Amino acid sequence: MKDDPRLTPLVAALPATVPFVGPEAQERALGRPFAARIGANESVFGPSPKAIRAMQEAAAEAWKYPDSHSHELREALAAHHRIDPGHILVGEGIDGLLGLLVRLTVTEGTPVVTSDGAYPTFNYHVAGFGGVLHKVAYTADHEDPERLIARGRDVGARLIYLTNPDNPMGTWHDGPTVARTIAQVPEGSLLVLDEAYIDCAPEGTAPPLDPEDTRVIRMRTFSKAYGLAGARVGYAIGPKPLIAAFDRVRNHFGMTRMGQAGALAALKDQTYLRETALKIAAARDRIAEIGKANGLSPIPSAANFVALDCGGEGALARAVLTGLVSRGVFVRMPFVAPQDRCIRVSCGTEADLAAFAAALPEALAAARAEMG
Amino acid sequence: MKDDPRLTPLVAALPATVPFVGPEAQERALGRPFAARIGANESVFGPSPKAIRAMQEAAAEAWKYPDSHSHELREALAAHHRIDPGHILVGEGIDGLLGLLVRLTVTEGTPVVTSDGAYPTFNYHVAGFGGVLHKVAYTADHEDPERLIARGRDVGARLIYLTNPDNPMGTWHDGPTVARTIAQVPEGSLLVLDEAYIDCAPEGTAPPLDPEDTRVIRMRTFSKAYGLAGARVGYAIGPKPLIAAFDRVRNHFGMTRMGQAGALAALKDQTYLRETALKIAAARDRIAEIGKANGLSPIPSAANFVALDCGGEGALARAVLTGLVSRGVFVRMPFVAPQDRCIRVSCGTEADLAAFAAALPEALAAARAEMG
Repeated sequence: MKDDPRLTPLVAALPATVPFVGPEAQERALGRPFAARIGANESVFGPSPKAIRAMQEAAAEAWKYPDSHSHELREALAAHHRIDPGHILVGEGIDGLLGLLVRLTVTEGTPVVTSDGAYPTFNYHVAGFGGVLHKVAYTADHEDPERLIARGRDVGARLIYLTNPDNPMGTWHDGPTVARTIAQVPEGSLLVLDEAYIDCAPEGTAPPLDPEDTRVIRMRTFSKAYGLAGARVGYAIGPKPLIAAFDRVRNHFGMTRMGQAGALAALKDQTYLRETALKIAAARDRIAEIGKANGLSPIPSAANFVALDCGGEGALARAVLTGLVSRGVFVRMPFVAPQDRCIRVSCGTEADLAAFAAALPEALAAARAEMG
Repeated sequence: MKDDPRLTPLVAALPATVPFVGPEAQERALGRPFAARIGANESVFGPSPKAIRAMQEAAAEAWKYPDSHSHELREALAAHHRIDPGHILVGEGIDGLLGLLVRLTVTEGTPVVTSDGAYPTFNYHVAGFGGVLHKVAYTADHEDPERLIARGRDVGARLIYLTNPDNPMGTWHDGPTVARTIAQVPEGSLLVLDEAYIDCAPEGTAPPLDPEDTRVIRMRTFSKAYGLAGARVGYAIGPKPLIAAFDRVRNHFGMTRMGQAGALAALKDQTYLRETALKIAAARDRIAEIGKANGLSPIPSAANFVALDCGGEGALARAVLTGLVSRGVFVRMPFVAPQDRCIRVSCGTEADLAAFAAALPEALAAARAEMG
């Protein structure tokens, strides 16, 4: 298909590839539904029943446009974090917020630093606005804050991206390490601290919030431990001038009423969130056990998934993944070596993990046979 | 507040103003809820009960990310319009789709043509990507297709924006006129035909769909007659290379599961849509009657609102609007002269319009007194 001649030169030069193929698209290709949906780091434990009820009630009011300020949710988040609401922007998931942040700060040729193999949707947005990505290798399966900062300084990066806990490996740094990293952000750079998985991590993984600090913007989401991936609600915490700048470019009426109501109710049910975190921790242990029982090495994780080292090159892990998918178990894997020696398994229900445990030995045997 | 120094020059130069202040923000300023919410061209008649039920069922599955292709909805839309799904892109309302379209085609200095006083969110997106807006006056309260095309040719416009039926005036052109306009689109230009209100308009207002035609992209929405403004679902119909290009920049997982399910169910309930269109037509008549009874001249409308000419300058209409809002009746008005001699009243329930009928004489008297 020939490009439309009216595209901007930047867009015309972008690849047609997309960051992720969703499970529904894979199911359509397979011709049947997955038996276990444990590949997209969703929360199979679901959101608080109160959040579901709130969304159901909001559905009856769906004829109204959403509040363009997400006022109630923003006020509740501000109270929850004990900060001023002017430091918070609610948006259509971290994906949407990352896109806007890149638009605000990156233009053609702007240098940006990330880790090689970290969240591809961030890279997608940087490329989409013409930024130049500089990638730093992981160190022992961890994103490496010191090297990220050093590279940021070297290239004069506008943005330096760090996920904590990391996706796709699940590894994490403690709060003091992240606080030191923030303190080292070079003048003119902004640390994008993606804390999508923070609610699954041990106490103390997040450094204290200091929203006046102009060196960092923090991203949080209701898609992971809160269990609301389908409602598209994330938020950014940062210095007021930066948060206010989003209002110049964002889709002001882009949130849904159901998402706003669901997130508000989920936020208010912290008991449910804590219970979910316990279920996530138990599921992580179970995934690690299943992996070990099959000769795979689990990478310690503070997220809602576990990377299992298949003990070979990327080709072996890819073959294992293919075997699992063809057996109805949806999992994913890191894109980049050496992390791509792993498969990545999201926390599941007991039934999900039983399906995984049943499929894994066959998938492994087939993959090993294929590798010779 | 001083700007963040890391903003791009383009963003740093953008104004902080937003296209619309939502009714909730106005209610917070007023300190009480509106008695009648008839300002944002929402559908007070609500969506199909089947759509509400579908969203409520989807809420229970909100832990899953949405299908990034909106596959089921897109297939159903394709069947509904009897076109290939490759010609359709589902997105977060027309606002979201317009933003993406501008991003695909407009860069700093790109000329764009619209009508002076037409949809401000389109202008917001054009400014947001650095495009240069050329505005053509309305002719007798209608957007003027011939002048739009002529100006588009003169300035070498990448995009030419036409709404049919028009917002904020409610006027419309018939299908043959729009078809002639499409045929006249200059080489290198794209007509953005915003048909948000088409489901409220007489048969024949939309020209036949020819999605292979590279001169036009058409925008439709579930926010108006379908009654799903709070679910954020719109779609674009256009030539395949252009539709495919959105995949290079859009937020692939930006839709919500509830929105996808609600729109699908609403689409399938065409009986409900037809009934709603009748209610809208009856409410338009009632708004016109109320206006006439108070000495205002209704502009004939094919949308879900009526512009009422207050018979003076913009200042008079603004005073009437202020009087209505302070009396608990949320309405809006055109931003630009000479259209701003009108207030714009969305179709409401009988109770809404009774509240409007009760408040209007007082608001008019106060406004006329204020004007001297």
